[in-house]
Amino acid sequence: MTIAELSPQIQAGKISPVELVTETLARIRRHQPALNAYITVMEESAMEQARQAEREIRTGHYRGPLHGIPYAAKDLFYTRGVATTAGSKILRDFVPDYDATVIERLREAGAILVGKTGLHEFAYGVTNNNPHFGPVHNPWDLARIPGGSSGGSTAALAAGLCTFSLGSDTGGSVRIPASFCGLVGLKPTFGRISRYGVFPLGHTLDHVGHFGLSVADVAAILGVLAGPDPRDDSSANEPPPRLDLSAEPGLKGFRLGVPRNYYFERLEPEAEAAVRAAIQVLRGLGAEMEEVEIQGIEDFTVLSRLILMPEATALHRARLKTRRADFGPDVLALLDQGQFILATDYLDAQRRRRQLVRGLDRLFDRVQAIVTPTTPTTAPKIGETMIKLGGQDEDVRLASTRLVRGLNLAGVPAISVPCGFDSKGLPIGLQIFGRAFDEYAVLRVAHAYEQASEWRKRRPPMAAL
Amino acid sequence: MTIAELSPQIQAGKISPVELVTETLARIRRHQPALNAYITVMEESAMEQARQAEREIRTGHYRGPLHGIPYAAKDLFYTRGVATTAGSKILRDFVPDYDATVIERLREAGAILVGKTGLHEFAYGVTNNNPHFGPVHNPWDLARIPGGSSGGSTAALAAGLCTFSLGSDTGGSVRIPASFCGLVGLKPTFGRISRYGVFPLGHTLDHVGHFGLSVADVAAILGVLAGPDPRDDSSANEPPPRLDLSAEPGLKGFRLGVPRNYYFERLEPEAEAAVRAAIQVLRGLGAEMEEVEIQGIEDFTVLSRLILMPEATALHRARLKTRRADFGPDVLALLDQGQFILATDYLDAQRRRRQLVRGLDRLFDRVQAIVTPTTPTTAPKIGETMIKLGGQDEDVRLASTRLVRGLNLAGVPAISVPCGFDSKGLPIGLQIFGRAFDEYAVLRVAHAYEQASEWRKRRPPMAAL
Repeated sequence: MTIAELSPQIQAGKISPVELVTETLARIRRHQPALNAYITVMEESAMEQARQAEREIRTGHYRGPLHGIPYAAKDLFYTRGVATTAGSKILRDFVPDYDATVIERLREAGAILVGKTGLHEFAYGVTNNNPHFGPVHNPWDLARIPGGSSGGSTAALAAGLCTFSLGSDTGGSVRIPASFCGLVGLKPTFGRISRYGVFPLGHTLDHVGHFGLSVADVAAILGVLAGPDPRDDSSANEPPPRLDLSAEPGLKGFRLGVPRNYYFERLEPEAEAAVRAAIQVLRGLGAEMEEVEIQGIEDFTVLSRLILMPEATALHRARLKTRRADFGPDVLALLDQGQFILATDYLDAQRRRRQLVRGLDRLFDRVQAIVTPTTPTTAPKIGETMIKLGGQDEDVRLASTRLVRGLNLAGVPAISVPCGFDSKGLPIGLQIFGRAFDEYAVLRVAHAYEQASEWRKRRPPMAAL
Repeated sequence: MTIAELSPQIQAGKISPVELVTETLARIRRHQPALNAYITVMEESAMEQARQAEREIRTGHYRGPLHGIPYAAKDLFYTRGVATTAGSKILRDFVPDYDATVIERLREAGAILVGKTGLHEFAYGVTNNNPHFGPVHNPWDLARIPGGSSGGSTAALAAGLCTFSLGSDTGGSVRIPASFCGLVGLKPTFGRISRYGVFPLGHTLDHVGHFGLSVADVAAILGVLAGPDPRDDSSANEPPPRLDLSAEPGLKGFRLGVPRNYYFERLEPEAEAAVRAAIQVLRGLGAEMEEVEIQGIEDFTVLSRLILMPEATALHRARLKTRRADFGPDVLALLDQGQFILATDYLDAQRRRRQLVRGLDRLFDRVQAIVTPTTPTTAPKIGETMIKLGGQDEDVRLASTRLVRGLNLAGVPAISVPCGFDSKGLPIGLQIFGRAFDEYAVLRVAHAYEQASEWRKRRPPMAAL
């Protein structure tokens, strides 16, 4: 059940947070062995919070739509007194003494943290097979990856082991697993959500994001997470996003862009067909479709990699000396590469980035949002490293990130919503992005599409078990 | 005369902008040979604007306090159709086809640009003796430098060759020449004033700033310059600064910090005595004085140099290959050094910077502003490279920048106001800085001090000629 379905019943006392959390924990026990979605399950504290929520609601202190709702957080959000591994061996025993701002905000909203989910090592590893914690499995097909790096959060949510979840997105790590697991995943604008207490990867690329079973749920969660934070100097002092999705149900007069370049190259035919069909649905909803050219989009992708490398290495440099043997081989190779990049090259990349972002911003004078595929393929198999697309062999990770990574450079809001299934029964994602701080446009298009389609109601068979 | 003195008379038609500009241009012709303050004088366009201002005011279209006021801009502000050399041989013939945002804003406010002023080569040169345009001379003593890198703007203003002027401040380049020329110079908060169309030096350190004959003038100019600019992505979306300086004339209950560390080391005794006396004046105005420790201030200074080097080199890298022989030797040496800094070192410095800035920000929970000397000495002689301070030899440029440079790292607003004269008759500057975006606190302290002292009325003898 979605938050929107649960919360009126929780408020009315018809659904008990204690029962909801008890059932969620039972589902975790049942499915965790097959999925490996969680690194830490917080049974005791979750039950205690559920009892507290129940008391509060019974005595008339209802906090809002997340009150009593169980959620999961990628294991790089700091949780006071609870191990926060960042998927690494090095931090396996690290227990923060404070909560991330978003964890704090969710607690104040009454949401109940049931556990910390698996991820790529330091959110940076190439392989989905985390060398320290093993692979997370996709509930749609246990032989497949859920996508990364926030894959534990989407595996847990898709299988019904929580009602929403938190992720982070430095090069697509929210949108890719949303696409591969058939969920709604939002990366809001850079600066929209505090990063305080979130283990970093790339200082100018990291975004906090989140997953829900519907666009309305994702909007409700954003309402709690968004807002300035004096403890995070990248946090923006902007008015809160508009979130009233039912105000304008159709898309009449809404101007939507479809890129003519880059985004529709080398796609799996079934993925492309689903996205093209979704665009027809959007047109049917009254949106005015316009072909757009996203200038320099190849450079967006290349530069985001060049910028990330030294940023990640700078963060890990001390550990690279003292704990070299404790990194997985793929992370180590990336961190080593980052050591040799010159500051002037990094700064040139940042300068070119600013030019590109200005160019993209001008596009939003003509269209209010742009729709593309999220990923060129559905979920690959665990261990699969190369994939054939458009007759070319392509590295699986490069393929998964190539349609999403550029938007981390741009910092603009981007969502992935389910838009169909391939013949193997695997979900396909539609990416929608808009102007900086205009989450409303992105959510509105996603919501209108979702209402007009039936995909979101399709859940993996495991979710019913 | 100050803007505050001129503008009511201009508005009332008692002073004619045409006469004012005519006289300013005559003064430029008279003193330019001795001062070398201007690189370009814009006689024709200034006269045309003066006539336009006069027409507008006569017909009841008074634009505000800068209408009809002649000003000068450091020759790195882009001016459409007028050479913008950045003090370099390489850009000697560069004529921009658009105006900097601040030039545009000043034109809209009716201010009249009379010329472009001399500066260090690319605002980066070590020597005040610009190898391409020769030294600018200090109106208080022609054998001395006006300070850099915005020295042409202060020489012109102190000698009466304009009524206010624009500068830029990457490592003290507004506050140093304000101190050496006995003027008020403000570097507002990073992001407060648009940098669009300002030839850059250090992307994360550059600030636009300005000079006036009084704190009230500087506040009035800030009112025109401040504000967000979509064309500059470093521009901040903050509400405008409070500028009503007469609202609270005294400093009763105002909490002022005086650093116990760093800022009072190795000062010329006369400079120290003047600053200590100014602190007594502030106490007499009712301010509560508190000793503060500015943690890591040495690191502020070191890091600002480390961060600037690759930022400047990245900007000039193409020219460094194609126009190597056309750089002055000191700029070339600095640019060459910047090539070898690793991105990880640069990023580490930026991370440490964020920690330091958070620490400084916390200090402003206890005090509303902090007062220090602006420079450890009064203006050095042209050609002087070493100076003896506290029994140690010190490089003149390092000495001039050491009390100001750290605040470019912090991005906080900082002003220099005259606070006395040494026995050679050279002006001494008092630096006041406050919390990010709290220009009001800084201006208020400076204004109260200025009202209680007589220094601002002392002008170099040349100004009367």
